[in-house]
Amino acid sequence: MSIWHSIEKPTLLLDCDTARRNIHRMCEKAKTQRIRFRPHFKTHQSAEIGEWFRKEGIRAITVSSLDMAKYFAQHGWQDITVAFPANIRQMNTVQELARQIHLELLIESPETARALGQYLKSPVDIWIKIDTGAGRTGINWRQFSEVATLVKETRYFAHLNLRGILTHAGHTYTPNPEEIVKRYHEAVERMNRLRRELKRYCLLEVSVGDTPGCTLAENLGEVDEIRPGNFVFYDAMQLHYGVCQPEDIAVALACPVVAKHPERNEIVIHGGAIHLSKDYINNGEQIIYGLVALPEENRWGRPLPGAFVRSLSQEHGIVRLSSTDMEQIQVGDLIFIIPVHSCLTVHAMGSYLTLDGKTIHTMNKE
Amino acid sequence: MSIWHSIEKPTLLLDCDTARRNIHRMCEKAKTQRIRFRPHFKTHQSAEIGEWFRKEGIRAITVSSLDMAKYFAQHGWQDITVAFPANIRQMNTVQELARQIHLELLIESPETARALGQYLKSPVDIWIKIDTGAGRTGINWRQFSEVATLVKETRYFAHLNLRGILTHAGHTYTPNPEEIVKRYHEAVERMNRLRRELKRYCLLEVSVGDTPGCTLAENLGEVDEIRPGNFVFYDAMQLHYGVCQPEDIAVALACPVVAKHPERNEIVIHGGAIHLSKDYINNGEQIIYGLVALPEENRWGRPLPGAFVRSLSQEHGIVRLSSTDMEQIQVGDLIFIIPVHSCLTVHAMGSYLTLDGKTIHTMNKE
Repeated sequence: MSIWHSIEKPTLLLDCDTARRNIHRMCEKAKTQRIRFRPHFKTHQSAEIGEWFRKEGIRAITVSSLDMAKYFAQHGWQDITVAFPANIRQMNTVQELARQIHLELLIESPETARALGQYLKSPVDIWIKIDTGAGRTGINWRQFSEVATLVKETRYFAHLNLRGILTHAGHTYTPNPEEIVKRYHEAVERMNRLRRELKRYCLLEVSVGDTPGCTLAENLGEVDEIRPGNFVFYDAMQLHYGVCQPEDIAVALACPVVAKHPERNEIVIHGGAIHLSKDYINNGEQIIYGLVALPEENRWGRPLPGAFVRSLSQEHGIVRLSSTDMEQIQVGDLIFIIPVHSCLTVHAMGSYLTLDGKTIHTMNKE
Repeated sequence: MSIWHSIEKPTLLLDCDTARRNIHRMCEKAKTQRIRFRPHFKTHQSAEIGEWFRKEGIRAITVSSLDMAKYFAQHGWQDITVAFPANIRQMNTVQELARQIHLELLIESPETARALGQYLKSPVDIWIKIDTGAGRTGINWRQFSEVATLVKETRYFAHLNLRGILTHAGHTYTPNPEEIVKRYHEAVERMNRLRRELKRYCLLEVSVGDTPGCTLAENLGEVDEIRPGNFVFYDAMQLHYGVCQPEDIAVALACPVVAKHPERNEIVIHGGAIHLSKDYINNGEQIIYGLVALPEENRWGRPLPGAFVRSLSQEHGIVRLSSTDMEQIQVGDLIFIIPVHSCLTVHAMGSYLTLDGKTIHTMNKE
């Protein structure tokens, strides 16, 4: 019997073959170029999916919180970077983790360096977070003297082992593949310029890692480490940016159709903000909260042209369709929403149903 | 010692006194006007907070999913409306609940009426969902013949007890108190016009329920039932719309400051999309993901003028501040984010910390 039959409410489907292929590709790319691959596990958040990386030879990972570091440490990961500015209010948790595993932390403030240096009793590796253009976190790559101050602050403390400079070039999230590659290389160049200037103090590694750049740049350039995460599943945003193809997307939310409104070419689905999250694509004409596909034999199909999730309430989604597609869909059917941002949808859902009917939990449902 | 001292990571604070005052006010308003108050519990999602309503005499509630109905049924609630178009793929769950409690369901499609009518073995009350202008779900109030068809379909089945017509006038979510009151009364008027036209078939009740309208309309008008939910906590959106005052807001997310960027008047907090959700206010000038307050003796203060959450990543928030406020805040401090949409923040967080240090769980953490 078809797997669709058993689905009663919003359910996150995982196409394991596609995810494993995505993992294999990125591992091969890094290996060929002799670059350390430290994948970001915030996208899948699952010990079981982590094992697929281990089979490819991965031993070091990236996470986005100390809670996530604790979860993966409990599941046997011994080398973890927390890619978030170290939070000095969680010093006890940091200390506990630093005792158990090889822990790498990010800093961008002298206060944080001092607090870690004075408090920690176990050694940790430190990366200085650099802003190469995204304007989110990190010291701007042009502010050499501030970075130099932080280098000196860090090196003052015996337990803080300064490893290098790290960036997330979030400004590669733009709907133009050529521009993505250009911005990726520009970020790598900025990091290397900073590394050269800092050579008078110490030798530093360079870590970068964003899915658009690491997917599209054929040559990853002069870096020691990449840390992409989203590539494991991709999503509607990456598709919109030209980073992936529909067949590379490994997750979709199966949603029951609960009402039809032919007069406005819309259907109502059970599947809302608490399932998909409210990230959106603004394509200049519409705000899009998800793409739409129909069931095929044993997977969801390609995104229906012109169809999209127009709005999300707490539990409802409103889906705009062509009149031809409207006729194919009945109340009680399942449709499939390709999420705009797979990391947030996975976090919201907390578990996956694989296409062969197995449930995989994330850390949120353990 | 101050409660702030113990907070290490994003924590949802609940001001119980304010929430209880909000509950009491709405109960009194409905009681005075002899209108049944069936509060929506999707905002707080907590059995413990449900008891505060019970103390005010509330016996009937609204929820947004069957999972939520099951949770509150387990906590002693015997009269529950699921204010979401009935999902016929969950027929077994509906049947199970209908056996245990007095269950009320929403329909807007003849297919759903037939499926419920043919399958259910226990009686349920039915409301026909009407769209009075929001354009989300329900049959448009002008489509009299479609509503009449649904009335006849429903009355054909002995187990389906047609109670009335129900609307959520979501278009009262607009930043103009006078316009909110106007739209509320217009929706009530549309519902009553429809009720009069349907009188030839049967006598129907009218149920309405949105926080802006039910808060601001002094006279709730010719309705049998109101179902607001958000009023228990309010939020930055309701404040923006002029529905509440800062002192009516009962929840805020305490967030550690992890970095400062004085050169752009921004700080980085631990507190992102997975904590706050990504609902936003577009005030014409900015996209705002939350308002910002500083700690006071035993509560968060008033929102800082001009300060707001500019962007949210998975775990990070970027907060824009005035240069004066920047000077007051240090790395390692706590600041308080007033969520744009309290329902989604509560759902994401799954538990509250009260101002006297007690933890209250929602259904997501039980």
